[in-house]
Amino acid sequence: MIIMSSEATKEQIENVINEIKRLRLKADLSRGDFRSVIGVVGDERKIDFSHFEALPGVKETLRIETPYKLISREFSRLSEDPAKHGVIEVRDVKIGGGEPVFIAGPCAVENKGQLLKIAEGAKKAGAQILRGGIFKPRSSAYSFQGLGSGSQEEAQEALSWLREAGDKYEMPVITEARGESQIDLIAEYVDIIQIGARNMYDQDLLGKVGRTGKPVVFKRHFGAGIEEFLSFAEYIAVEGNRNIILCERGIIPIGKGKSFTRYTLDLASVPAIEKETYLPIIVDPSHATGRRDLIFSMSCAAVAAGASGLMIETHHNPAEALVDGPQSVTPDELKDIIDACRRIYKEIHRKPAGK
Amino acid sequence: MIIMSSEATKEQIENVINEIKRLRLKADLSRGDFRSVIGVVGDERKIDFSHFEALPGVKETLRIETPYKLISREFSRLSEDPAKHGVIEVRDVKIGGGEPVFIAGPCAVENKGQLLKIAEGAKKAGAQILRGGIFKPRSSAYSFQGLGSGSQEEAQEALSWLREAGDKYEMPVITEARGESQIDLIAEYVDIIQIGARNMYDQDLLGKVGRTGKPVVFKRHFGAGIEEFLSFAEYIAVEGNRNIILCERGIIPIGKGKSFTRYTLDLASVPAIEKETYLPIIVDPSHATGRRDLIFSMSCAAVAAGASGLMIETHHNPAEALVDGPQSVTPDELKDIIDACRRIYKEIHRKPAGK
Amino acid sequence: MIIMSSEATKEQIENVINEIKRLRLKADLSRGDFRSVIGVVGDERKIDFSHFEALPGVKETLRIETPYKLISREFSRLSEDPAKHGVIEVRDVKIGGGEPVFIAGPCAVENKGQLLKIAEGAKKAGAQILRGGIFKPRSSAYSFQGLGSGSQEEAQEALSWLREAGDKYEMPVITEARGESQIDLIAEYVDIIQIGARNMYDQDLLGKVGRTGKPVVFKRHFGAGIEEFLSFAEYIAVEGNRNIILCERGIIPIGKGKSFTRYTLDLASVPAIEKETYLPIIVDPSHATGRRDLIFSMSCAAVAAGASGLMIETHHNPAEALVDGPQSVTPDELKDIIDACRRIYKEIHRKPAGK
Amino acid sequence: MIIMSSEATKEQIENVINEIKRLRLKADLSRGDFRSVIGVVGDERKIDFSHFEALPGVKETLRIETPYKLISREFSRLSEDPAKHGVIEVRDVKIGGGEPVFIAGPCAVENKGQLLKIAEGAKKAGAQILRGGIFKPRSSAYSFQGLGSGSQEEAQEALSWLREAGDKYEMPVITEARGESQIDLIAEYVDIIQIGARNMYDQDLLGKVGRTGKPVVFKRHFGAGIEEFLSFAEYIAVEGNRNIILCERGIIPIGKGKSFTRYTLDLASVPAIEKETYLPIIVDPSHATGRRDLIFSMSCAAVAAGASGLMIETHHNPAEALVDGPQSVTPDELKDIIDACRRIYKEIHRKPAGK
Repeated sequence: MIIMSSEATKEQIENVINEIKRLRLKADLSRGDFRSVIGVVGDERKIDFSHFEALPGVKETLRIETPYKLISREFSRLSEDPAKHGVIEVRDVKIGGGEPVFIAGPCAVENKGQLLKIAEGAKKAGAQILRGGIFKPRSSAYSFQGLGSGSQEEAQEALSWLREAGDKYEMPVITEARGESQIDLIAEYVDIIQIGARNMYDQDLLGKVGRTGKPVVFKRHFGAGIEEFLSFAEYIAVEGNRNIILCERGIIPIGKGKSFTRYTLDLASVPAIEKETYLPIIVDPSHATGRRDLIFSMSCAAVAAGASGLMIETHHNPAEALVDGPQSVTPDELKDIIDACRRIYKEIHRKPAGK
Repeated sequence: MIIMSSEATKEQIENVINEIKRLRLKADLSRGDFRSVIGVVGDERKIDFSHFEALPGVKETLRIETPYKLISREFSRLSEDPAKHGVIEVRDVKIGGGEPVFIAGPCAVENKGQLLKIAEGAKKAGAQILRGGIFKPRSSAYSFQGLGSGSQEEAQEALSWLREAGDKYEMPVITEARGESQIDLIAEYVDIIQIGARNMYDQDLLGKVGRTGKPVVFKRHFGAGIEEFLSFAEYIAVEGNRNIILCERGIIPIGKGKSFTRYTLDLASVPAIEKETYLPIIVDPSHATGRRDLIFSMSCAAVAAGASGLMIETHHNPAEALVDGPQSVTPDELKDIIDACRRIYKEIHRKPAGK
Repeated sequence: MIIMSSEATKEQIENVINEIKRLRLKADLSRGDFRSVIGVVGDERKIDFSHFEALPGVKETLRIETPYKLISREFSRLSEDPAKHGVIEVRDVKIGGGEPVFIAGPCAVENKGQLLKIAEGAKKAGAQILRGGIFKPRSSAYSFQGLGSGSQEEAQEALSWLREAGDKYEMPVITEARGESQIDLIAEYVDIIQIGARNMYDQDLLGKVGRTGKPVVFKRHFGAGIEEFLSFAEYIAVEGNRNIILCERGIIPIGKGKSFTRYTLDLASVPAIEKETYLPIIVDPSHATGRRDLIFSMSCAAVAAGASGLMIETHHNPAEALVDGPQSVTPDELKDIIDACRRIYKEIHRKPAGK
Repeated sequence: MIIMSSEATKEQIENVINEIKRLRLKADLSRGDFRSVIGVVGDERKIDFSHFEALPGVKETLRIETPYKLISREFSRLSEDPAKHGVIEVRDVKIGGGEPVFIAGPCAVENKGQLLKIAEGAKKAGAQILRGGIFKPRSSAYSFQGLGSGSQEEAQEALSWLREAGDKYEMPVITEARGESQIDLIAEYVDIIQIGARNMYDQDLLGKVGRTGKPVVFKRHFGAGIEEFLSFAEYIAVEGNRNIILCERGIIPIGKGKSFTRYTLDLASVPAIEKETYLPIIVDPSHATGRRDLIFSMSCAAVAAGASGLMIETHHNPAEALVDGPQSVTPDELKDIIDACRRIYKEIHRKPAGK
């Protein structure tokens, strides 16, 4: 959709139409009393609208179709079998389309004993997937960057603990890949690769993780709108990998004064995204709030909003955690959370509610 | 807390301390290896920290106490009887401290028939309080501004319909006051006065509504942090009126590209605010999302997050509504929402969960 | 512009077109391969697009024209004489269309002596208009709210000092109206009425100040986009008052961590607004940055960006100022600022630069 | 600084103090009437405050020192020779500490002829450094990703054109590295490596680019506060590379309605950053505004705000540019911009202004 200036001349309008035709697209002109609007018909993905904005007489351009297609509910319905999408199976666990799935574990893997202890607690509490950070994104160059940031051997050792803990407690495992150079190594050990919020825009990393074919938990950047978030998920999908689990983890808080939560958990994104794409969306209340005392409430709220799962930082002794202690819950607290969430899920689906 | 520059001289430090003493406050100096920090002990409410920032050698100042006191849980515990706060009674309805309360009705009152029809539907659906907009805040000077924006007589007539509908269906009624000049008139007719998001910062309006002594629904501005929101609620409280019902209704969405919701509903503010103040907090999912198809999910989520109530725009024929049709639900949809919310509330409180 | 869902039926499309016709507007249908788009031709101001969004089969609606007309450059060119707009004369001072104008004075009027002293210093430094706050918008109910917040007599006295200082030093005077009830009183004493950022959305206040016919400095809210800002300026213009001086004063900072400035001064709004409306736009670097040590740089930048003027808080002794000392400059500093700004203005306009 | 809850017990306070001592730091307790505050004295870089937040009785923690040290003006003054920092020499061009430097060239390198033509025009206009994008970060997986995104040979060829154009017109050259795997190749060909806004948080990429020892243009992420921006610059500095040129390029616009600029150019960050760090800061008005018609004004404003340089997208035929045509200026326009900026710089430094 190309909006012409009210002062655009006939020649300028014709020039735009010729340019559209030159690009083998169809032009559809509407002349209003005040200004003209030209529709561009064709595969919008391949149109660089900014190109038209540089033409004389053009006021602005408006994109009507989304910049993502493969992951779009509306587009995939046209050409594909909808039944094939939306449920991601990882070992015995199904994510999407049914009961919420619980991912738990420490923010950072500290040592083998810590990890096994937490894995045991998480399993007992009802968690189905084990998380553990080995390559940690940190805001300060002086903070602990995770065991993976040392030598290659240390990284492998930490990854092997994660694998071992997962096997022992029969949980698929997930860890974050922070840089391209870590992907191959991580893919050897884990069932799901996480792309953190800070790397959401990293299209080279997304391409590489897409090509592994492994399921990916893909987190929304804290400065990204939903449209951007989905546009970057498409970078994984174009590699032939649609095992993408989206994750809402909070956006930048706005407003003056002290923030009461680390980020603003955008829970309405859960049902909004669910209507746009068949990909499942989970929620990380731990990073979103940064406050252990809010995890219970926000977990319940996320499931009530329709989340397909939760990722919750868990530590047997939050005060001793090397990273993010204040936002970790204990296994006992985790159990309360999972139980309440499952009851809420059941109540919401008890009858064909007005959803 | 006054942070001195690392290059502050002895004289500058002494000067700050003298200034603190001159204001009859106590100074508490900590000398670090790199810089000095001076604590100011006294009633922080009365300290204008920016005053100290203008003194030479001062790097910055940090406020430790909140700028609100009367509505603060922590402060009120010191000097008052906590049992006296947190439940607001309006006729037979109790808001805060128990089951969620449902406020429903049209965005804008259009005529008497419309209002009575919606009131009847809302009542049957389980709503307890009737809302109806008469003075509408609008973004465009050319949009319908509500029946109250015509003559004084028209405003009175619309208010009398609201009163009548409330009396007929035994529901307390609420409407928004958009300007100071409307307060006295509105107070004659309604049980609760609403201050909309756009007026949150209007301290003259807050003072005036506070002095009516009427219960107030006080909405967070879409650009306000929680600390600001509570600081402005204090403007009502200092008038001796603590019948304040806070309302979260979404903040400005951030991120490039199309917004999928009108605002970002900040649901974590619900439990966060609940820990800061004893005032009840309710949620308005209608304005927050602007999308009828998200109201069910976000209502469930709000109650799961701990909201003391919901305010939901309801219309028997959303496509015909003069204002905000796309975000209004029908009375049937409202019933599903209220039922699901009540079940969720029960499940969360079934046992002393880890909250 | 109404975008239909890709799954909209023929009937739904016809229904939308009939609805458009029913409202006596013209419909212009474009059928694409994937979806249909319906243009609505008519006076867009009077179309409530949300009304169409509630119709079945509609995906979304897009507004193409702006919600403001009277202040729009594009619209006013059609029907009015452009030469009549864009320069606002207040006594001998012309704002807009030429050399930048400098408004200076204390954040808050404290007493007559202080005001006269600052007025004298500001005049000598080259300022042309005197500002002085009497009704102060404050974030805390416990802060000094300005002399106008006491009795009616105190307000009148403070206003008379402002008038006297303006007359003595031959400068038009400006003060802020924070609430409707203050407008009539203020209008008696001052040449220009200021509407502060926090009141930008207050349409009743805007209507009332518009009806005084007095020139208005209208500040952008810190959470408002430019389109909203201009839409609310239209509320003043529809009252027949186009003596509106827009003022950019910073928007909410985003991003984690400590803010280095109180707000984010959006200087690109200056030339962007200059292309949208003929109304002059000035800049307030004092509130935007909150830092005296940045005022010089940001004043120069604002004039280089094309601002028609600057509003700068000035105090002969910033450390003693009751309000906003840390952001006030001294008269000597003000002189340096004004001199540098005037030189920059001259350099930019020395030849018909590529603007 | 650890703020205890008003209800913290003696034991809880002692426990925190013991924990501080256990970590070999010094504790400094201030008991107020209402609550206690404990200062932690030691190298704040090595303190993980979140660790203390998980201890019982702790209300919150406040960091007083910055998370960056090597690039901090205040810290480097203590231990280093300030004269050694702040000017970065690239071939004959000095960035920082004097006249603004102009970087120009196409957003994307399209072919050799295009690049040479633009290089010639940029040189004649007065530009000193040549930019050209080869690895393009794009929001859509379907947009042109730059010549570097094809085969290794194509990337090398495009890089060699850039080198050749730089050599021919005697300008150092700069291009963006979007992923770790591109760094080594790029470092062979260019004088300065650019890290784009989207990669600001990519600590692995920062580490790698830091280790090349090459000068780096480091762009602020559009969702990052200044403190975060500087904290991530420290990731480059800890590798022993202080040849860091910071670049402000706009942050996410806030506010409802249509954006008039692509991003919000935060020009006050220029003098604010200049007071925090000795690293030079330049401005990119092209990406910030996305509008060719605003580049002149915002370039002048950036230099007036104190920027050490500008990066301006230039194309001999903006309407034909493959990427970002609407924001590119022609070489003639560039000349006007550079001339005006140089005049403004001179005026600002003509006398020891009140800066």
